[in-house]
Amino acid sequence: MPVPPLTRIDHVGIACRDLTAKIEFYTAVFGLTVVSREINAEQGVDEAMLTVNDSAAGPSYIQLLAPLAPDTPVGRFLDRRGEGIHHVGYGVADIAAALDAIGAAGVRLLDSRPRHGSMGAAIAFLHPADVGGVLTELVQAAGRG
Amino acid sequence: MPVPPLTRIDHVGIACRDLTAKIEFYTAVFGLTVVSREINAEQGVDEAMLTVNDSAAGPSYIQLLAPLAPDTPVGRFLDRRGEGIHHVGYGVADIAAALDAIGAAGVRLLDSRPRHGSMGAAIAFLHPADVGGVLTELVQAAGRG
Repeated sequence: MPVPPLTRIDHVGIACRDLTAKIEFYTAVFGLTVVSREINAEQGVDEAMLTVNDSAAGPSYIQLLAPLAPDTPVGRFLDRRGEGIHHVGYGVADIAAALDAIGAAGVRLLDSRPRHGSMGAAIAFLHPADVGGVLTELVQAAGRG
Repeated sequence: MPVPPLTRIDHVGIACRDLTAKIEFYTAVFGLTVVSREINAEQGVDEAMLTVNDSAAGPSYIQLLAPLAPDTPVGRFLDRRGEGIHHVGYGVADIAAALDAIGAAGVRLLDSRPRHGSMGAAIAFLHPADVGGVLTELVQAAGRG
């Protein structure tokens, strides 16, 4: 099965403890712009998306993630590793086709079907143990595909 | 001092043990294309750059990094954390101006002056403790600025 190529770096997800302080840092020191702030109860996070650049394939963001509770994926990550880079998300044109192809290549899917991500995107995570220790997310942005 | 904004996600740096195997994975499973493979003796890495997307501000890459020896920054990272995301690199138009402004904002610079990075870029690292646990690199690509 041919593998649909990744179309862009959609975002780098960064785990933090104080979301408001981190937003202030990234806007004041790095000149980034917040385009979305939302709570994703299913994933247990309060989050903000900050645009770094746009491209023909869509924007690239920094995604700042603070846990809603200690017993959430990001809360456990902070306990284990402290603040830092949590995952990388790649754009794909057709997430269902990408999951089929990547799964057929032998990568375990943490989400076999897409679920709700930031700003209305359809997203799915791949098992980090099958991607060289990198928690990897696929993103089909809302209105794309 | 006004802060020069970051212009793009230049790359996500990923630490791995077997560079050839990881290149094969990212090209076969994710459809990425290798544009550079080089040894950076100063940084103690054998590395490859794989293009994910281009933009008006320049390309975004995945940078795969394997240590030349255990007693190197990436070698120590692998010992401590295992394979995974090592750092994020952002494009800037003028790295000297960016270092001045970011340093003046209170972020410690691991490199107070730019040094040689991938594909002839001028690069400098910021102290991760001042960027919420994120090892952060600034990149002025060769021929830009």
